[in-house]
Amino acid sequence: MHKLEHIGIAVRNMDEGNALFARLLGSECYKIETVEAEGVKTSFFRVGEVKIELLEATRPDSPISKFLEKRGEGIHHLAFEVDNIYTAIEYYRRLGFEPLTSVPKKGADNKLICFLHPKTTQGVLIELCQSVTGS
Amino acid sequence: MHKLEHIGIAVRNMDEGNALFARLLGSECYKIETVEAEGVKTSFFRVGEVKIELLEATRPDSPISKFLEKRGEGIHHLAFEVDNIYTAIEYYRRLGFEPLTSVPKKGADNKLICFLHPKTTQGVLIELCQSVTGS
Repeated sequence: MHKLEHIGIAVRNMDEGNALFARLLGSECYKIETVEAEGVKTSFFRVGEVKIELLEATRPDSPISKFLEKRGEGIHHLAFEVDNIYTAIEYYRRLGFEPLTSVPKKGADNKLICFLHPKTTQGVLIELCQSVTGS
Repeated sequence: MHKLEHIGIAVRNMDEGNALFARLLGSECYKIETVEAEGVKTSFFRVGEVKIELLEATRPDSPISKFLEKRGEGIHHLAFEVDNIYTAIEYYRRLGFEPLTSVPKKGADNKLICFLHPKTTQGVLIELCQSVTGS
């Protein structure tokens, strides 16, 4: 892995989250996007070469709802950029990690994504992501 | 804040953590350092312009022991680089954040550090850090 693409942070209320992180980082959120299939609303901030992605649940069965219930607000995942997510999924599976899906899903920010199960990554939820042109 | 300096990850066993993250990131840990005053042993990896810092407790009353007991292994903090940590502590205090100490402490990797209480940062433990020349 050559680049940390973003850090995902679960928040209960995106408006409060956006205000707080704008104050903390000294720059405003530059994009808000909802991914209905994942039950998540996202907002993005830039800090140098890395993005901060706030994640708010849009429905009770969202993975973010479950995370908030179990762990409360806080850092949800680290996302690393890969050149080809299909080969990356197979590569990390062969290394002993456990991809949560065998094919990538469409995420926010024009990305194809796949998570590695945190039980195989010492409690850290890792996202593999590949940038794709918007469709 | 202009740059994410590192991401701190709490692990129960540093040897296992170093092996796992070397496999995941595709590069070996390049430095191990103990900070006795904080009860923590650290190891560092590079991913592009960002560092990953693994944190292992060296004694039961270490903040990392308490974190592991409460939350288990996982992402512990995000560290942002500041030019002057003394003025940064005052700056963030005036913005409504709660620095955990009024003066910085000596951290690993030739840094002066100060944490902001996660109750004021939506559950995310934020470290301010300033690089200093080694002494």
